[in-house]
Formats: sequence, structure tokens, C-alpha cells
Amino acid sequence: MFEMDNKEKYPLLASIDSPKDLRALSEKQLPQLCKELRGFIIDSLANNPGHFASSLGSVELTVALHYVFSTPDDKLVWDVGHQAYGHKILTGRRDRFHTNRKFGGLKPFPSPDESEYDSFVAGHASNSISAALGLSVAAKLEGRNEHVVAIIGDGSMSGGLAYEGLNNLSSTSNNLLVILNDNNMSIDKSVGGMSQLLISMHSSKFYNKVRYAIAKGLRKIGILNERRANAVIRFNNGLKAMLFRKNNFFEGMNTRYFGPINGHDVHELVRMLKSIKDMTGPRMLHIHTTKGKGWKPAEKNATEWHQPGIFDVETGERIVVNGGSPRFQDVFGETLVELAKANEKIVGITPAMPTGCSMNKLMEAFPGRFFDVGIAEGHAVTFSAGLAKGGAMPFCNIYSSFMQRAYDNFIHDAALQRLDMVLCLDRAGLVGEDGPTHHGAYDMAFLRPIPNITISSPYDECELRRLMYTASQPGKGTFVIRYPRGKGSLVDWRCGLEEVKVGTGRVIAEGTDVAFLTIGPIGKVMESVVADAASDGVSVAHYDMRFLKPLDEAIMHEVGKKFKYVVTLEDGSIKGGLGSAVLEFMAANGYSPKVEIMGLPDMFVEHGTPAELYRTCGIDKESVLRTILKFKEL
Amino acid sequence: MFEMDNKEKYPLLASIDSPKDLRALSEKQLPQLCKELRGFIIDSLANNPGHFASSLGSVELTVALHYVFSTPDDKLVWDVGHQAYGHKILTGRRDRFHTNRKFGGLKPFPSPDESEYDSFVAGHASNSISAALGLSVAAKLEGRNEHVVAIIGDGSMSGGLAYEGLNNLSSTSNNLLVILNDNNMSIDKSVGGMSQLLISMHSSKFYNKVRYAIAKGLRKIGILNERRANAVIRFNNGLKAMLFRKNNFFEGMNTRYFGPINGHDVHELVRMLKSIKDMTGPRMLHIHTTKGKGWKPAEKNATEWHQPGIFDVETGERIVVNGGSPRFQDVFGETLVELAKANEKIVGITPAMPTGCSMNKLMEAFPGRFFDVGIAEGHAVTFSAGLAKGGAMPFCNIYSSFMQRAYDNFIHDAALQRLDMVLCLDRAGLVGEDGPTHHGAYDMAFLRPIPNITISSPYDECELRRLMYTASQPGKGTFVIRYPRGKGSLVDWRCGLEEVKVGTGRVIAEGTDVAFLTIGPIGKVMESVVADAASDGVSVAHYDMRFLKPLDEAIMHEVGKKFKYVVTLEDGSIKGGLGSAVLEFMAANGYSPKVEIMGLPDMFVEHGTPAELYRTCGIDKESVLRTILKFKEL
Repeated sequence: MFEMDNKEKYPLLASIDSPKDLRALSEKQLPQLCKELRGFIIDSLANNPGHFASSLGSVELTVALHYVFSTPDDKLVWDVGHQAYGHKILTGRRDRFHTNRKFGGLKPFPSPDESEYDSFVAGHASNSISAALGLSVAAKLEGRNEHVVAIIGDGSMSGGLAYEGLNNLSSTSNNLLVILNDNNMSIDKSVGGMSQLLISMHSSKFYNKVRYAIAKGLRKIGILNERRANAVIRFNNGLKAMLFRKNNFFEGMNTRYFGPINGHDVHELVRMLKSIKDMTGPRMLHIHTTKGKGWKPAEKNATEWHQPGIFDVETGERIVVNGGSPRFQDVFGETLVELAKANEKIVGITPAMPTGCSMNKLMEAFPGRFFDVGIAEGHAVTFSAGLAKGGAMPFCNIYSSFMQRAYDNFIHDAALQRLDMVLCLDRAGLVGEDGPTHHGAYDMAFLRPIPNITISSPYDECELRRLMYTASQPGKGTFVIRYPRGKGSLVDWRCGLEEVKVGTGRVIAEGTDVAFLTIGPIGKVMESVVADAASDGVSVAHYDMRFLKPLDEAIMHEVGKKFKYVVTLEDGSIKGGLGSAVLEFMAANGYSPKVEIMGLPDMFVEHGTPAELYRTCGIDKESVLRTILKFKEL
Repeated sequence: MFEMDNKEKYPLLASIDSPKDLRALSEKQLPQLCKELRGFIIDSLANNPGHFASSLGSVELTVALHYVFSTPDDKLVWDVGHQAYGHKILTGRRDRFHTNRKFGGLKPFPSPDESEYDSFVAGHASNSISAALGLSVAAKLEGRNEHVVAIIGDGSMSGGLAYEGLNNLSSTSNNLLVILNDNNMSIDKSVGGMSQLLISMHSSKFYNKVRYAIAKGLRKIGILNERRANAVIRFNNGLKAMLFRKNNFFEGMNTRYFGPINGHDVHELVRMLKSIKDMTGPRMLHIHTTKGKGWKPAEKNATEWHQPGIFDVETGERIVVNGGSPRFQDVFGETLVELAKANEKIVGITPAMPTGCSMNKLMEAFPGRFFDVGIAEGHAVTFSAGLAKGGAMPFCNIYSSFMQRAYDNFIHDAALQRLDMVLCLDRAGLVGEDGPTHHGAYDMAFLRPIPNITISSPYDECELRRLMYTASQPGKGTFVIRYPRGKGSLVDWRCGLEEVKVGTGRVIAEGTDVAFLTIGPIGKVMESVVADAASDGVSVAHYDMRFLKPLDEAIMHEVGKKFKYVVTLEDGSIKGGLGSAVLEFMAANGYSPKVEIMGLPDMFVEHGTPAELYRTCGIDKESVLRTILKFKEL
């Protein structure tokens, strides 16, 4: 085991309890600090898994930022937050870093609730420019002189929100500095024209060198004060215009552009940041970094090492626990290939998550029928709708919480046209260690009011396969299948592909006292509670509803007629989901059973293991049993 | 009155019953057809109001597209659809054009449900590139050779979705042609860096002329067949690279760029479209047009003439009906200025709707505290969250249905951080003539599951003012105020600004038989029903809930204890809104009144006047009275 406060191994780092300590170092000491910080991150993550490659890639940037800027008065806004471990370690959280992502421990992403150094919430990609612009404009309005810096990766640049932010950068008075941390990579490889554009910017290095040299020269001879810096920039822009005529997207957006520079040269970073720090107006600094820098296996395969789990620091081998039942995403990925083999209309669309949702299996089998559109959920859904309208049969896979980005697209472009397409929502319910930004808590509630659509969730892996097969049949309309992160319950999951009747549930257990209505794999998890209740003398009828919409009316009438006490259970918000649907049905049809709704409470649930979190939310076997046994008191 | 089939006035147009008839014309006849089409649009809209300036601006483009392309086999995807009246008139809908936007008449925007010439749904901005890309890729996969053209205005280019589409244009095999209809204007003036970038492209006209001349020359001497065209383009790209080094955003995105050309020269359009029609790969054609072209008042003030209402064709004067109570948006606009005068922290943010939501009043009074961010709802909300985090007090105003574009931003960037900011949703409920894409039907249902927020809707204009005042007070958190399009009920609406206790409703009428729970101005509309019920012998207690979240628990307990029959009424989806909230409360607290939920049904509601549409949905005084009187049968 490594020791967190090993002063021999981390002599400099161990002395840094806040960025003030960092700023007391001489610039010459920074490379050593970077080395220690990188070692600390590697040692920590070998034992306590987390986001790995991104944080290694931004070590020098993090050190340089806290060295040059007066954090926390100056504000850093990290996009996504995968890269912010170094930031956490340098801002008073080194001693607690071993609790990172654990229940009750450090939060998975930057959060103002945790630290004054975290200026804005992070988790979902592409929000940093918009948020930082707001901070910067507010500071100006309030008469404060603080600096605001947004740090965004090239992967996040594929999101429309980042573009909307950029597009507004030049139209308001602000001093925002945007740092584009370019590693030609989001989680999987970056895709799209913007990525190509960034690559092409290498070629303008000559020009930037010229401009930088001029600025440096002026500074050396003492004439580059804050006011004059702007004049120099204007001159530089003129020069650039002469040489290249708006050769650069960002300059075209009226945002001054600096770089690209080497993001692993901490001295170059410090010099550049110092020279542009006090300039006014929006600026973009483009730096090049390598994901996983300093850890060879990660440099070679950053996708695998994005979130590698624990690994052996000596051998560099990832310690992968195999066996048992597969993950739902694997069943999705394998089944999609199986369906695609039989039906050539099937295509797959993912917003930058081919590995995360296992659509890489389709990519390998049918590269021409696979579309990774980058971090662009809205486009993913509207593009899928276009594919469907054009005659293809799209399976679009989006993590449940990221689907919040494509809500309008789904209503306006898919449901309104009753298009035959399938939306698979991976990571539904509580996702665990990624915490409140990533829980898929609201999907059932926000999808249910949408007309024309079918919403389903499989009880187990076989049901996932059957639902996918059913959804792929012609005329099934706009079809949602939601399922959680992680493993299912079956080892032998390759059951036959049979069609399920849309809007029908299943009886899992017969019973007479209490109707127990569940949707999704949470029902399977709670299956044993029915037997426990029986041994307590309460006979439970367990129904797997399978479809949130349309509800199985036959089951609902049966339940309404036969039962006085109904318990509903879902791994989604208690407001607006299955429980509400059951109440609405009962009210509309004149039944009046007592209905107890179990689901996620009306709060942002923190991070931890799913088991820890569900227990916190009162969704565990004991609580469910207790609720069912309330029947005795009626 | 003008006659729709006046063959003297529209000799050419009257003969065109489908684009086939148009394609039978000689090219020389096209200017005459454009003139007639423009006249027809002006004459029609003078009598039957609709979107005016946009359609006048795209007359020549519409004629040229249907002349060059084999619609409906070739597919046109209109962004937003404001500009598609000419398209409707030329595609077999001329005779019905006088029913445009009327209940049961032609739909307000292109819709595949209405015509095979409408290739994809339109209404919300910026979806055309993504949708058309899907159509184009699907055609390729299916082995069809059709052409697909997306037509997008420069205003829509400020939406992140358009950028996500562009960013994916070059990464898949497709032959999509994107036409950028650039009038330096969305509904209000275009804002942002992209707008500046487009303006700057004028300067590259010289280069494009050179390139175009080369292509034309090659065509003339007979060597520009389809295959060779690509080689020429590659040569041109090389030329461009030499001259300007990626001087163009679109070329930087690996999308070939043509133009800008004059979008009112139908001959130039036809020539250009013919020459690039059969090229392969994604292409962008940039045209310049004038909104309102051919109607002087509209050319001068396109914002006012975006949707001018009826007007006098002879004098050019808009016929504005004044008097009576103000519109909710005016009360919002005036009150915001009043609040901003007293509280200098208040700022206003609108995504391209300063006139539509009346935030132009703030713009005039405090230009430095007003931010029009362009068609960019996601950015509007995240930017507002940044402003709030930085210490400002933002009022962000978004139309309810467009808020669907900013759902994740509201959850992730605002609610999760419990920021003090106000989200005002204009156009909530059924908006009328703009139809299913624009109805604000889902906001209450999709917002209710979000933790940490307050959701309210004012009973009348005074209540709107009180809620705005309340929301602007420190510590009130993330606050939603939704209200409908159109006029309220009060003439004298400048009541005092008093704080309302969050989570409290009001008793409008006392009663003993039925509890009538309403939220928003629909409750005011139905006020008289209570008296009608009384004369029918049923005593109704009418509660204005005012807050959907948190619900007034005192009222709810009172209702639960005192009433056996409860009727809830809301102008939002029947699934997941107020009715569901009431059911959830009753279930959780052991009350079992019979609850009848009245709201918008689970369907996409078509277009018409709000009164017509609410009646279709069973939300009219008679239906509400009938539902209340069911009490007698209990």
C-alpha cells in the first residue's frame, strides 16, 4: 500500500496545503512538483479507482494555473471535471483524496459544495464556457476584478453548448480566458469537423511564434503594461489578418487566440499565462497535452485508461474482476450486433460513448452502420430521427442523465413524427460513484408525458434482448428502453429473441394480500422479498410492469379490483414516474386501493456504491419488506 | 378582399398545382413567377396573419429549389419553417393557403403529416442540418440517389444543435447540401460571433468568383461531369488553401463552401444550384437575402413584420387591435424594469426573444444588464446560472416549449447548485396557431421531479408581479414562473409588489361539496364556473394553488380532510403535473378523496385559436362544470 503522506516520495507536494503554499515556490521547483503530483495521482488511483488519463494529462496545466492565478478569488471552471484531480489535491484535499468517489468522501467532480476552489459544478460536458462567461460578466457588473478561466477539452468542444458559449463570448464585455486542452481525444477518440479544425491549427504555429515574440519583446523592454497589451493584440490581429485572413475559427468569433503551446511544459504555460492574464476581453489559449501523460499504458490507450479501475503500480496491469453475469451494456452491445446481422436497416448512434455503452461491438461488426457523433446528445437524437425518417432503423444509445440534453429533440423530432426508432438509456437509476450529476433519476418522469411513445425497462438481461427485438420490428414507433449501469442477474443470458406484446407486464408471483408493482431490474433485485413477506404471513402478487407507457391495463384493472394495498417500486424519481402513473390510472378508473410509492426521493442523491445509495434512499430489501408488511396494519 | 385564384393577378402561379408544373416553365419565366408568388404571399397575409418577413425573403430560393430539384423525391428540410409559405403554395397547397394556421386548416410549419413535400418536421430552430444529415445518410444506406437539402437561416446558426450537425457533416459519407440563408437576422437581430463571422465572409467574394468562374469554364467546355466536378473542387480547395489558409469556418469543418451569392437573383440561384447539385459530399451554399424583400415596411423593420398580424395592402399599415387588459409578456417586461430599478443585481437573459417576451423594455432601460444570447436556450440557462453564482440576480425568460432545449442545463447548472435565479416561462399551455411544436404542455411535468426548485404560476397579472418580486428576493433559490401567451384578465394591473409566501395557495371561493384546485390563469378563466355550480346546487371550494412545488400542504390537508371529491385543473399535460402531485400527496398522507384530473390530454394538440384548442381538449367551462357536477352522482 502506498502512503498518502510519504514525505520522502512527495517532499514538495506534502507541504502544499493550499495554492498559497504552491505560489510560495520558485518557478524552478514546479517541474518537481508536477512530477510528485503525477506520481501521487498514479499511486492513489492504483488503489482507489477513478478517472485516470485525463488528470494525468492536465498536471502541468493545473500547477501553472494555481501558480499564476490567485485562486480562489480568481475562478477556475473545469469542464466535465475528469481532469480536476490535481486541482483537488492542490486545494487542501490531498489528505482526503483516498476517499475520492467513496460514499461520504470527496465528490467525484468539482463542486462548490465541497470547496471554495470549485467555482462551478462540473460533470456534464461543455458547460464551462457558458458558466464561466456568466461568472465573468457578473464580476464585471459587481465591480470585482477577479480573473475567470474556463478549462475545456477538445472532446467537450463537440457539444453544442460549448459553441453557444463561444458564440456569445465576444458579444458581452468580459475578461474570460478559455483554455482549450487539446488531446485529440474525449473519452473515445474525438470525432467531427471541429476536431479536424483543431488538428489543422498546428500549422499556424509559425504565425503564433511571431506574435508571441513581439509581445515578449515589448514586455522585456518594459512597455507592455495592461493597457498597452491590448494595443499590441490589436496590432497582432491586424498582422494575422494580413497574413491569413481570419484563418482561425476562434479569431473569426472575435476571440483572441493564443497557441497552440505544449501543455506539458510548465514553464511555457506559466510564461504564457502570465503574459495574457491581465489582458482584457475574451481570450482563448490552445494547449496540446497527452492523455495519460507519464503512465505509458495510458498514453498508448487512453480510452481503456479513462477510468481503469484499480491496477498494479509495479507492473502497470489493470486488475480486472471477471466472471459472473455480464453487464447490461454488454448484453445491449452483443444483442445489437445480433439484430443488425438479421436486419440490415439497423444502425447504431452514440454520442461519444461507444465503449461506455458497448456499441463498439457494432462498430467492429458493421463500421458503416455505426455513428459516433461526439458529445452531442441533441444531434444524436435528431440525426437518429432523420435516419428513421429516411428508412433506417436507428438504435440511439445515451446515458440516462445525458439524455436530459436531448429532451426537446426527442419530443420535437422523434415523438411528434411517430418515427420508428429506439432510444436506449444506459445508466438509468443511481449510477453510484459518479454522483448527482450522473444519476439517471428523472428519465421516466420526464419521458412519460410525451405522447406517441413507448417506455419500457427490462426485468433482466433476457428481457432486454426481447425488448430490443420487439422495438426493432416495423411499426413499433418511438421506443425507449432504459436499464441500469452494471451487471444483471443472469449468467446464461442468450435467450431467444421473441417479440413482447407492447404494453403488457408479467406476473412474477401470484398472491392475494398485496400487489407489488415494479419496473426494471430493481424488481428482480427485490424478488426475494416476496418470499420473505410470505414467511411473515403476507401473500404478495408481484407484477413486473415492463412498460411504463402504455401501462398494462389488464394488470391495472386486476390490481384495482383485487387489491386494497398496492406497493410500487422504481429506480427513478418518486414524482411523476410509475407510482404516479398507477395513481392516475386508479383515480381515472374509480379504484381506490391504498398505494405506497417507493422510488428515488425528491433530492439530489450523492455518490457512493449503488448499494450504499439505494439504502440511503430507502430502497433496500428491508425497507421494501417493511412497506409490504404495512398491509397487516390496514 | 383579394381572390386566391385571381388568374389575372397570378397568371403563372395559378397554373402551378405541383412543382412538376413549375419545372415545366422556362427559366425566363421564373422572375415573373417569383413576383406573383411574392404578391400572393403579401395579399394572403394581409388578410390571414402569419409569419411574413421570412417567407418574402426566401421566394427566389424556394422557386429555384423546386425548379432544380426533383421534389418530393429530392428532399427539402426547412429549418424553423417560418420561411416555407412559398414552399407550401408551390406544392399543391395554394388553394388551401387561406386556411393557413387556422383550426383544421393548413399547419403553421412544414409537417410530413400534411404533405409529402415536407420532408421533416419544423418549428424549433436549428434542427435541419442534423435531420437532413440523417435523411441523407439513410438514403445512401438504402441505395437511393435522392438529393437532400437543408435550408437554415443565420439566426438558427446560433443554436448549438446546428453546430453539432455541422460538426458531424464531414465525418459520415453523405451528399447533403446545406443552404445558409443569411439575412443577418433571426427574429430579432442576430447576435454573437458566428453572426460576425458570416458578415466577414463577404470579403471572400473575390476568391469565390475566381473559383466559380473556373468551374463554369470547365462546364462550358464540356469537361465538368459529376466525377470531374470533385476533382475541380479539390483543386479549388487547394487554391483556397493557398490564398487564405482555411479562411473559412465551414471549409475548416471539411465542408465545401460556395458563395455568398445574391439570394434574390433567381437565375444566379438556379445556375449555382444546378452546378453543385450532383457533386458528392457535404456542401454549404451561402446566400444573402433580405427579410421582408418586396414589402418596404418589412424590409425596414423585419422584427415588427416577423408576424405582423393583419395589415392594409394599400397603405402598408398594420391593423393593431388595442385596448383591454395587457398581455402577460407586457406585465413581465414592465415589472422586470420596475424590479431592476430597485435592485441593481437584477439582469435579464433571453435566447433571441427580446420582443417576444417583452424583455426589450429592460434592454432599453438598462442595456448593460440585458443579454440576448441568440437562439441558444441551453447557453441562456447555464449563462444565467453562472451570473447567479457570480452574484447577479438573473431573470431568464424562455418560451415553455423551447425550455425543452435547456432541461439538462436547468437540472445540472442551476438546481443542483440551488442558485438564486428566476426562470420565466412565457407561452406556457396551448399557444394557439403555432401548433404542436410550440405548445407549452410539458413544463410542469418535466420540472416537477427536479429537486431544490420552486415552480409557480400566477392566477392573474398582479400575481405575476408578486411572484416576480418574491423570486427576486435573496435566498429564494431556483424559481420558475410560468404563464401563458396572450392577455390576462385585469385592466388595472399595477398592483403593489408584495412578497408571497413560497408554497402557499389562496382560497378563491369557499365551499363544502367539491374542492376545485387550479394553477395559473386557467383558474381565473374558470372562476365563473363555481357560481354556475352553486346555482346547480353544488358548493365548490376553489383554491388557486399558485405553487406546483412546493405544494401548499395546509391546503392539501384541509382538502384531504374535508372533501370527498376533488377536481384539479391545469393547462399542462395530464400526466405528471398538478393532478399527479395531488394524487401523490393524498396517497402519501392517507387521504382517499375521489380525484378527477383535468388537463391537456396525452396527445400532440394541433393548431387553432387557444379557445378552439382548449375546447378540443375538454378544457372549457361546460366541461369543467360537468366534471364538478359529477359530485351529485357520488
